[in-house]
Formats: sequence, structure tokens, C-alpha cells
Amino acid sequence: MRILLDVMGGDLPPAELVKGGIAAARGYGVEILFAGDPAVIREALALHGERDGERFSILEASEVIGMDEPPVRAVRGKRNSSLVRGLVALREAEADAFVSPGNTGAVVAGSIFTLGRIAKILRPGIAVTLPSVGGEDFLVIDVGANVDCAPEHLAHFALMGATYARDVLKIERPRIGLLNIGTEKAKGNKLNYHAFEILERGPLPFVGNVEGHHLLTDRPVDVVVCDGFVGNVFLKAVEGGVGAVSALLKKLINRRGAARLGAFLLRPVFVELRERLSYQGRGGAPLLGVDGIVVIAHGRSDAAAIQGAIDVARRAVESCLKERLEQGIGGWGGDGN
Amino acid sequence: MRILLDVMGGDLPPAELVKGGIAAARGYGVEILFAGDPAVIREALALHGERDGERFSILEASEVIGMDEPPVRAVRGKRNSSLVRGLVALREAEADAFVSPGNTGAVVAGSIFTLGRIAKILRPGIAVTLPSVGGEDFLVIDVGANVDCAPEHLAHFALMGATYARDVLKIERPRIGLLNIGTEKAKGNKLNYHAFEILERGPLPFVGNVEGHHLLTDRPVDVVVCDGFVGNVFLKAVEGGVGAVSALLKKLINRRGAARLGAFLLRPVFVELRERLSYQGRGGAPLLGVDGIVVIAHGRSDAAAIQGAIDVARRAVESCLKERLEQGIGGWGGDGN
Repeated sequence: MRILLDVMGGDLPPAELVKGGIAAARGYGVEILFAGDPAVIREALALHGERDGERFSILEASEVIGMDEPPVRAVRGKRNSSLVRGLVALREAEADAFVSPGNTGAVVAGSIFTLGRIAKILRPGIAVTLPSVGGEDFLVIDVGANVDCAPEHLAHFALMGATYARDVLKIERPRIGLLNIGTEKAKGNKLNYHAFEILERGPLPFVGNVEGHHLLTDRPVDVVVCDGFVGNVFLKAVEGGVGAVSALLKKLINRRGAARLGAFLLRPVFVELRERLSYQGRGGAPLLGVDGIVVIAHGRSDAAAIQGAIDVARRAVESCLKERLEQGIGGWGGDGN
Repeated sequence: MRILLDVMGGDLPPAELVKGGIAAARGYGVEILFAGDPAVIREALALHGERDGERFSILEASEVIGMDEPPVRAVRGKRNSSLVRGLVALREAEADAFVSPGNTGAVVAGSIFTLGRIAKILRPGIAVTLPSVGGEDFLVIDVGANVDCAPEHLAHFALMGATYARDVLKIERPRIGLLNIGTEKAKGNKLNYHAFEILERGPLPFVGNVEGHHLLTDRPVDVVVCDGFVGNVFLKAVEGGVGAVSALLKKLINRRGAARLGAFLLRPVFVELRERLSYQGRGGAPLLGVDGIVVIAHGRSDAAAIQGAIDVARRAVESCLKERLEQGIGGWGGDGN
């Protein structure tokens, strides 16, 4: 299996991302095709006693798409970027999956332009795994690929999220919930109401509406479905809530001597807490619904996060995710339409 | 000043809510008109050595609107509920403000039916104050009154939130931000884009888009504007993030002896943390845009939370909030349209 890694568009230097690719190759026995500046990649490989050859190869790309570039214009304009050249190589089957910590909008737009969509899937969606207090992760889809959705799009997110949860996360019968502001069917906006109507008639294991305040603690479902705007707000608000507690804890602890000793004794707890609640360490977010395995890593990804994202890609390839998604609703006992 | 308190529709028993009303009367020198079952209210008053008369009076209401009743049907069907009778009494100027910990949807629907809207405000919005790490609160509007919004509605939320922040929270020139999933104007959905266009041309101190992950830590604006669905998701996601940290902390601490000692030393920190991040203790959320001062308290409000909500109502009355809102955009140097 060969994974294509875009080492140019992330927040951290390419050498850090190459390091993650090397760790993944060593850890999972995959080949890595690095897209980017060959000189930089060779130098980073040499640092770890590696060189380009069979296990590590290089796809030359002279341009870089920045984090703040308008996605569509960047993808159309920079044909020699690591992002676009990488996606073209994926389409030409030079690799089995594509991993990028770059501009999310550009990865989405580039994937749609270059790979196209899977038949019958109207819109791709980004699926992110979030940690729960009990230890098991759950999936949220979409967290930002589509910000203006129709009910059918949400139904497709549910289908893809369920398929991913079943075939990649190995949850036998994943429970699907719609993110809403109350649990009754009549709650929420029109979009959710109509999506609810589609899902309750369909073959997926749909359990109804779920609310955001207890997803991480009670984990009522395996897959949370929402439009990309709401999903992204949800994600950042959770991050904000977690961040506020730790910032305030630090501030309050520094004001008291006894508290400083207490905090010292609690250090291992705080370290584990951070690890458990970090979704960065969980690797990448698959972009589901495009005709190829594409994994979006966090822009701030370090080597460990990149290794995690490559692991996500590897498991998707091993699980034949693309073929499973192509079976569509038929793979869930639906009529295939 | 007389505040009308609905003591029937909350999660806690009426006696607890009456206790909050008594505390508010004693603390702020306001009169309280309790809406509900007279026998229950008299008994609760007697418990605290009070009786109905001038300072405490009773508005008899024989029906109760439950938390899960469909709002519009409940408001239309239960004319003798504490909620509807209370709103009618507010309209008839028997009180200066109305406070209820009942069914939020029913308070919103009942307020619109009974009081009507302030001229030129298309939709009322619920404004909630959230804590920041630095200590100063900020406002989020709307958090659930309107789940399907047009750009003009968001512009009105901005106007009302800014007015509330200036005249009640006494922030001289409140900075307004639109809740979005990126800071550039082009980010996000169509609703936000068009709301951005209206706001950047208007007279309010609009600073642009803001993202949810740093609102509580950096507090980039005083007023965050969003549609009610997104605002409610945001609120519950923050609550979920905060809740996940504390649940996980407890779980991890219980597994380690040294950590238990550390946690003991940190107890005052944890207590202050909970107080600082609780928005329940911050009292009620004003429903802005209806023709009267209406404050929605949390359903789980205890006496202290009810006292807080009455304080919110009192400050709104003292600040002539209704008159300020009626001045509309004209009060901000706009052309009044």
C-alpha cells in the first residue's frame, strides 16, 4: 500500500511532516509518496537515515497553496502545487490514499474537481472522530465541507458516516443521530426536520435527534450528523469549552500556594486528560464521498499527528472504504436509490 | 418596580422559586408578583415569614405549561397558565417585567402573541451572557428563539445585542462579531455572508467574523451574533466541552492515590472554576425584541438563579431597555430604517 503525503501546505515545516511519514512507514509497513520540494524532502529523509527509493518516493511539486488562499481560485491557479499534483497522482492510481494537512477548503475543492464524487453522493462530507469520557470515540459528519445543505445532503452524510463507522471503525451496527437543539422530532430548523423525515424512513440505524451538551459524556450515538457549518461550530465550541477550563484552571492555580502543590500531584492526570481530549492526536479526518481515499490532517499537525492521519488512511484502504461507499444505501438493505 | 415571576413551569418546585423571589425583593427592593397556585405561593411565603400584600402579591393561575409541551399549542390552549396569565398581566402594565423558568419555546411564542414585537424588529432573539476566562462576560444572541433566519434577522439580533450591551451591561462601545467558521468575510454559509454585508454597511461597531474556539479565552468581542439554531448548538457544545473535562478529571483522579490528595488541595480551585464557568448563576436570558421586558431563566433554576434572573430583569427596566430598543438603528446614528 502506498500513501501520498502532502508535506508543503501545513503550518509546520515539511521536515516535521516527512518525519511523520517515516514513522508511519516504519510502524505500519506502508510506502510513502511525498509530494513537495524534492530537495527539502531528501534532506529530511537523510536526517532519519532514509533516502528516496521504493519505500519512500517523491512527487515533485513546485507550488504551495497557503492556508488563507481562497480554495477554488488556489486549486484552479496552482496546478503544480503539492495539493493538486498529489490529487492528480491519486486519480492516476500512483497511490492508494492522499493525506494533507493543508488548506481544508482547497483539499475539498481539489478533491471534487480532480477525483469527482462517488455516484449518487451529492456532496462529500468531512468526518471527524471525537473522544468521549468513557473512552470510545464517536464520529461527527460534516464538519465543514458543506456549509449550505439540503436535507438530502444530511441523509448522505448519515449514510457515509454509518458506512465508515461500520467498515473502518468496526462498529457493527452504528447508531446514527441528528445534531439538534432538542430531542423531539419537531425541534430545530427546517433542514433538520426534513432530514429526520428521510432518515426515519430509511434503512440506517437512525435513533433520532441528539443534543451537543452530552455527546462527549454520555455518547448516545456512534455517528452525529449535521450540516458543515453547524458541525464546525460544534467542534470549535467543544474545543473552546475544554480550552476555557484549562486556561482558567491554570490561572486559578497560580494564585494559590496549596493549589500549586495540588496541581503538581495532579500532573499525570492533566497530561492524560489532554491526551484523551485531544482530537489532533486522533489523526486525520476522512473526506467521504469523493472518488478516492482523502484524509485531511489538522493544519497544526506534527509528526505524530501525521502518523495518525496516515493510519486513518491506511485503515480506510484496508477496509475497502471506497467500494463500501459505492454500494450506497444498497449496502444497508435499502433499494439502492 | 414590580417584577412578575412565573413560579409554576420550572423543573424545581414552586416553593424554591418563591424563595428566589423573596431574596430578590429583599436584596434589590423590588416588589414581586408571583404567578401560580395561590395556596402554594402563600405557604412558601409563610415559610420565610412573609405574606401577600404590597411587597408580595399573587396572580392566580390554575394551569401549568409543561417543559415538553409544543409551545404554540400550549400557549393557545392554556389561557389560565401562569405563563399566559403572567404575560397578559405584563401587557396590562400590572408589572414592569416578566421572569419565567418555564418552557422556553412557550415563553417566546406567548410573548410574541401577547405582547407583540417592537416596531421594525422582525424577530425577537434570546440573549445569553457567557463567562470568559478573563472575568468579563460576553453576550450571545440568538440562542434559540429563531431557528430559521434570514440575514436581516441576524442584523436585528446585532442591533438588539449591541443596545443591550451598551445600555444594560454598560459597555460603552460594544464590539459586535458574527459567529462563523473562519474569520474572512467569504467564509461560512450564505446566511452569514449576507448578514456580514448588512452589518459592515451599518452604524454598529461591527468587527467581522469570530470563531467559537477562542470566545471564552480571548473574548474578541462583546456581542456574538448567530441564528438561534447555531447559537443553541454553540451553547450546548461549550457546556459539553466543560462537562467532559470535569467528568474526565473526576474519573482520572479516582484512579490514583496521589491525585486524590492533589484534588483535595485543589478543591477551592475547582469550586471557583465551577462558579466562574456556570452560566446558570448568571441569571436569566432576556428575550429581546418583544414589546415588554421578558427574561427566560434556566429550567433548572434554583432560588439563587431566580434571584439572578430577577436582577437581570430589574437592570433592564432601570436602563429603559424597551425604549432604547424602540429607538432602533436610529439610536446608533443610523437613518432609522
